[in-house]
Formats: sequence, C-alpha cells, structure tokens
Amino acid sequence: MNSQIPLHRWSAVRLARALATRDLSAATLAEALIERSHALDPVLHVWAAFDAAAARERARALDDSPVRGPLHGLPLAVKDIIDTAGIPTTYGSPIYAGHVPAQDAACVSLAKAAGAWVLGKTLSTEFANMHPAATRNPHDHAHTPGGSSSGSAAAVAAGLVPFALGTQTAGSVIRPAAFCGVVGYKPSPGRIARSGVKLNSDTLDEVGIFARSVDDVVLLANVLGGAADASPFVPRFGLSLTTQAAQLSGDMLRAMAASANRLSAGGASVRDVECRASFDSLFEAQRIVQAVETASALAPELAYRRAALSPVLAAFLDDARRIAPEAYAAALARRRGARADLDMLFADVDVLLAPAAPGVAPPTLETTGDPLFSRPWQLLGCPCVALPAGHDAAGMPLGVQIIGRPQDDARTLAAAAWALAALRGGQVMQ
Amino acid sequence: MNSQIPLHRWSAVRLARALATRDLSAATLAEALIERSHALDPVLHVWAAFDAAAARERARALDDSPVRGPLHGLPLAVKDIIDTAGIPTTYGSPIYAGHVPAQDAACVSLAKAAGAWVLGKTLSTEFANMHPAATRNPHDHAHTPGGSSSGSAAAVAAGLVPFALGTQTAGSVIRPAAFCGVVGYKPSPGRIARSGVKLNSDTLDEVGIFARSVDDVVLLANVLGGAADASPFVPRFGLSLTTQAAQLSGDMLRAMAASANRLSAGGASVRDVECRASFDSLFEAQRIVQAVETASALAPELAYRRAALSPVLAAFLDDARRIAPEAYAAALARRRGARADLDMLFADVDVLLAPAAPGVAPPTLETTGDPLFSRPWQLLGCPCVALPAGHDAAGMPLGVQIIGRPQDDARTLAAAAWALAALRGGQVMQ
Repeated sequence: MNSQIPLHRWSAVRLARALATRDLSAATLAEALIERSHALDPVLHVWAAFDAAAARERARALDDSPVRGPLHGLPLAVKDIIDTAGIPTTYGSPIYAGHVPAQDAACVSLAKAAGAWVLGKTLSTEFANMHPAATRNPHDHAHTPGGSSSGSAAAVAAGLVPFALGTQTAGSVIRPAAFCGVVGYKPSPGRIARSGVKLNSDTLDEVGIFARSVDDVVLLANVLGGAADASPFVPRFGLSLTTQAAQLSGDMLRAMAASANRLSAGGASVRDVECRASFDSLFEAQRIVQAVETASALAPELAYRRAALSPVLAAFLDDARRIAPEAYAAALARRRGARADLDMLFADVDVLLAPAAPGVAPPTLETTGDPLFSRPWQLLGCPCVALPAGHDAAGMPLGVQIIGRPQDDARTLAAAAWALAALRGGQVMQ
Repeated sequence: MNSQIPLHRWSAVRLARALATRDLSAATLAEALIERSHALDPVLHVWAAFDAAAARERARALDDSPVRGPLHGLPLAVKDIIDTAGIPTTYGSPIYAGHVPAQDAACVSLAKAAGAWVLGKTLSTEFANMHPAATRNPHDHAHTPGGSSSGSAAAVAAGLVPFALGTQTAGSVIRPAAFCGVVGYKPSPGRIARSGVKLNSDTLDEVGIFARSVDDVVLLANVLGGAADASPFVPRFGLSLTTQAAQLSGDMLRAMAASANRLSAGGASVRDVECRASFDSLFEAQRIVQAVETASALAPELAYRRAALSPVLAAFLDDARRIAPEAYAAALARRRGARADLDMLFADVDVLLAPAAPGVAPPTLETTGDPLFSRPWQLLGCPCVALPAGHDAAGMPLGVQIIGRPQDDARTLAAAAWALAALRGGQVMQ
C-alpha cells in the first residue's frame, strides 16, 4: 500500500486488488470513507440516505466472507431513483418519504452479487427530472453539480466513494460528470438491466456509471453487463459540435479544440465530421419522447399527489400532456429513421468527440444546467462516455464526451480510455 | 361492398379502404361489432371493459372528422394490461378494480392518432402472469384461449374485432394466437413503444398485435413503429424444433412437417437448422430473467396487497425472490452472449419455422398453457409471428411461428405473409 495516497483517492481497480488479496479490509476502507463523508457532506449534501453503522456492518460482512467476485469489498453509491432493499429510496420526491423497497434493483443486485456493498443513496433531482436536489458542486459550492444524478457525480468527484450509479433520460449522467470533472458512462439501450429503477421514459432511460477513470467504469460495467472487454486500440476520432454549436461557451469551444489537439498529439486521427441538415430535428424529437413518456410514467403522482410535486415538474407534466399524439408519433419515427444520420457521422471514424455540456456548471443551485448536448445521442441509443477536459479560468471543470455507434459499448469505452490518457498527457490518476 | 361476407369477417385492410372512402361508416361497423359482442361475449368472456354507448360515440366522432390516418375508423381491442385514458384498466387484478388511467399508453395513443378507436378492453391473466382470466377458446369453450393476452386473441378469432393489442414477456402473444388460430406478432425490443404498459420484466416485455392476416398486422405495426414495409420475397426457411422437441405433441410434430411441405411446395427452400448444444440453457435463462424482474416490478403489490393476489402468483413471486442474484447475473450474461446461437441458426436462412406451442390449447380453463416454445426467442429479442397451421382431429387450431433475426422485423413479417399464403394454399382469408 502506498501510504502517501489517502484511501479515498485510490482508484476502484486498485482498491479491488487490495481488497481481493485482503491487504486492505473493507472495514478499513469503510471507516476512511465514512470519516470523509462526515467531514464533507454537511456542505456538499451528497447523500439522500447515509447510515454509517449499517455501512460498517455491510463492509464487515464482506471481510468475513469468501471473495464473492470482482467487486469484493468495494463501496458503491446508488442514486436515490434506484431501488435498494432495506435502504430508504425516495425517488427524489417527498411523496416517497420513508419508502423502503423490499428488493434491490437489478443493477444493485448484480453489483452486490459481485461483492460490492452500498455505502449510501445519493440525492437525485425530483423523480430524476429538473427540480434540483440540495447537492453542491465540489469544485465551487455556488455552482450546480448538474443533474439529475447530482449526488452520484459529486460523491465521486469529492472522493466520498470510488464509483456510483446514476441514470440518464436526456443528459443526467453525462452533464453532471462533466460539471464535476469525473468520468460518466451512459450505455446503449438494453446493456444494463433497468429493472427496479423508477421509470421516466421507457424509450430513453438508461442506468449509468460515474468513476474517476475509465478503467474503474469498466470494472463495474463488466459486472452490470454494459461492456465486454475490448482490446486497446488507437481510435479514429470524428470531431462534432453538432448543429447546436452556437450554444457552446467560449471556454467549451477552446476545450474541444484543445482536446482534439491532445488526441492528435497522442497519435490518433481526428477529423471533422458533418451532421446531416436534418440532424437538428433529433434534439426536439428527444425532448418530445421524453416529455410524453415521463408524463405517462408519472401520471399517478400527477393525478393523486399533485400538491406534493414541485411547481416546475407539475407544469412540465401539464405541458407534456398537451403534446399531440401526432408529434409523439413523428418523434418516434424520427428516431427509427436515424440510420442515415449514424452512417454519415461514423462513416470514417470509430467514435465521435463532442461537447458534454454547453460549458462549465452554471453558478446557481436553482437549475442543474441544460442537457442539450446529450439529447440527440440519447435518442439514437449511442453509448457515451464523459471525460474531464480541463478547466476554465476559475477552475471549474469542462467535459467532452466520446460517443460510439449503438451497441458498440466495449470499443467506445476502450476509445474513451485511450482518449482520457491522452487528455491527461499520459498520466492516469490513481 | 360484398354483402355476402359479413362485416365482422372483413380484414382490417379491407375495412380501412372502405372507411377511408366513406363507403363504410365507423358507426355502421360499430353496430355490427357491438351486436356480435352482445351475442357471443356472454359465453366467450372476452371483454374486461365494454361500453357500447361509449364505443358508438367514438365511432361516430370519426365519421364526423376528416380522415386522420391509415387506421381511420378502425376499431381496436386493447389488452387490459395497457393504459387507456378514460376507460377502466385493471391489469387483470382486483387490486386495480375501478382504476381509470388519465392517459393512453403510447401504443394506444399512436393508433388513435392514426384514426383508430377503442372498442373495448380485453381480459388479461392477472398482471399478465399465469392466473387465468375467464375467457374461453372460441373453437371449443372447454379449452383455454391461452394467455396472458387471452381476450385479445379470442376477440380476433371470434370476429369481435379485426385486430387487437397484447403483450408478451414469455409467450403471451404467440401462444394464444396459436391456440385461437389467428396471427400474432411479437416485435423486436424497442420497436413498439411500451410507455403506459403495466411492467413485468423490463428486459423482456413487448407489445404485440393480433389479427387474422399478416397484412392486417402490418397495417397496425406500421403505425406503431414495429415494421417498415419490406418487399415481398421468397424466403429461405430454417426448420427448428429447438432442443425441446420432446415436449411437442404428435399433432404439433405433424403440423410442423405439413407446414414445411407446404412451404416447399410453394417454392421456398426449407432446411433443418441445428441449435448449438448450449441453446437449451436459453429456456431456463429466460425463465430466471422473467421471474426476478417480475418480482421486482410487482414488489409493491406483493408487499402491500398480498391478500388480493392469487395464490399462484404470490407463490411465483415468493419463489422468484429466492433466486440468487448470481443466477440472475448468469441469465443476463447468457442473453448477452447469444450471438453465436443466432449466427448458427440464421447462417443460411432468412427466417426460422418453429412450433408456436407444444400442441393445441389444453382442455382446461385452469391454466393458459405453456410458453416454453417462446422462451428462447423472447430472450434473444427475435421478432416472432404466429401463423395458423391446421387443426387436430377435434378441430382445435395448431400454430407455427416465423422467427427472424433481432430487429429484422420488416423482412420477418414479409416472410410470414408469404408463409401464410403458402400454408393456406394461396388463399388468404378475407
């Protein structure tokens, strides 16, 4: 063990190795992380549910057990939109205050079967929609951490936990990862089982992963089914600002250019790729599918517990219910007809390099920022990996994303690992 | 109009043409179908909710409206597991007696936007699981119609409606279609939006379609997103009894052989295809994924309303909760690793010809029969089309299914249309 690096900064991969050989006990790790949460959470507000005594018990039980799998002894933070047996799960809403699920969601069950234990539940925006949670950005407490997976992103960024589960319907993994300066992975549809996750949009919802390195993401993704190992390769990158480049901040434009230069300097080919003229309609189509399906999924809460919803969510659902079925049908048809868009984008490249957000985290806790730059990729079912790509003058993180063809998750993660090493100048953070 | 064929036997395609030209009014059609329901439903028990006055109103409103789309004026029956705005929806359970959704499910919304109107809700087994509904098989009232989409299959078979919506998690479209002697289509994952359908297994659930011809299925599927039109072609068929051929009745074995002969006689190539030795594990893997995810989806009902569940469902959920997470993880991994199975099956053929059920509908109303012969295809995400393939000596229908590669829905339906014409000796029922 390298005593110079405190446990809370170790990578999940390194922790897993030390835990598997019993050079490190889960109980020791639990103490370090509980202490760190006690120090930081009163300001950061990462946790929706955090029971130090229960967490200690879970960790100790794994120390007393044979090695269960590749995650043995690793702590996991779980977004409060995801069911956890015996641990309060409120879906970010007072309607579900005190609700304790009987069963783990599939992703939690699979992680636990591989030896992970739940450190705590992380704050989510209300039903993983737009009304913010109390979480603050670890880089500057006056800034949003992004949402809806606010607590998961901030917890990983602040070293409260090595990795965390989130969900994304528009940009709820990629955007907070970018705002908090960590890695975020949103898989292709059907890769990570969603059973036991509070539903928003059946067409769009996915479970995602936050960590501080791509290798750590892959460690968890392999267990959850998101990725099979792919051989490392030097990817051909396509640079795309999409059709909404006018929405990017100057800092973000510079970060994109600097990132492209670093990838080129690392030996990769980086070429501009063009979107078809019709690409722009994907942004609106995603918005419509999300709104209509979320209004369907939350119809009982709107009908029976309207007064317990935030005004912004109630208004969103009301507006969504006024969207014409014809517009919804057209949006779904746009999604189905998107093969030409994908073929044009990926004609000569392995993955795309694109902005993860319009810029740095906005200096407010009233909103969680704009998911704009995730909308088309989410509708298309592309795997996406947010990567830290420098900071603005005030030290706030900027993020890019690596985007793959639908279901090409393993290669997309391999390309992201290559890209992250290049962006960090060959130094991968431990 | 051909007055020799009563309206209730017209195909949806023919009805659509006459309704679009206003040679037939939706109100006239509604009267004919309401009359038929009044005559037959007291014995068949197809309907979970049927309001003749409301149905008349919906039909009349379309007669008074410009043609809205390709389904203008066509009546639709909707499985009671699918939300319908303003129409009672109980999910086949007394727990939801009197429940009236505020919104239509996506599939209902899309059909209505194209001009269809809801004739009634059809009986489902309890939560689309195993406890039977009261529906009887139109071919012999002592036999099950199959399940879980019992009412939808029987309604189409009895000429109460030209087409109907169902759902399938294991074999809940394909089996009742076969037992009732109609066509049933279960799409590939993600083709027909599931928003607004009561959840069982997020990994497996799909919305399906019942009709009396493949052309009628395609008419509705095009609107719902399941299929794009494919050019007609003479398919290369692969004949597979799977690894569970020992479970097939003698009648079913003869029906498979006779079907293969008819396809050959029609000019198609039909060859035996082999399953890999490991194919057999797909049956059990599907069963595990279904059980674990259904137990998760119905956890609130089990926890809070256990006494209102049937004993068979409560026991099923209890058993499911005892399945080890490792077994669930292995089942999901089996699904992800199934590419080799698909490559071996489809190496030299366009589609497979396989049994839709072990035999004819069992002579009981206590169970809905065995979904065994749908399990592997459901897990693999293959599009499946059940086709009538003759009768046993007592006149009970036998069914085969046409199975395509995942997401090859348009060609699978085109192949099924070709096959149905060949099986019927070139005569397609009007």
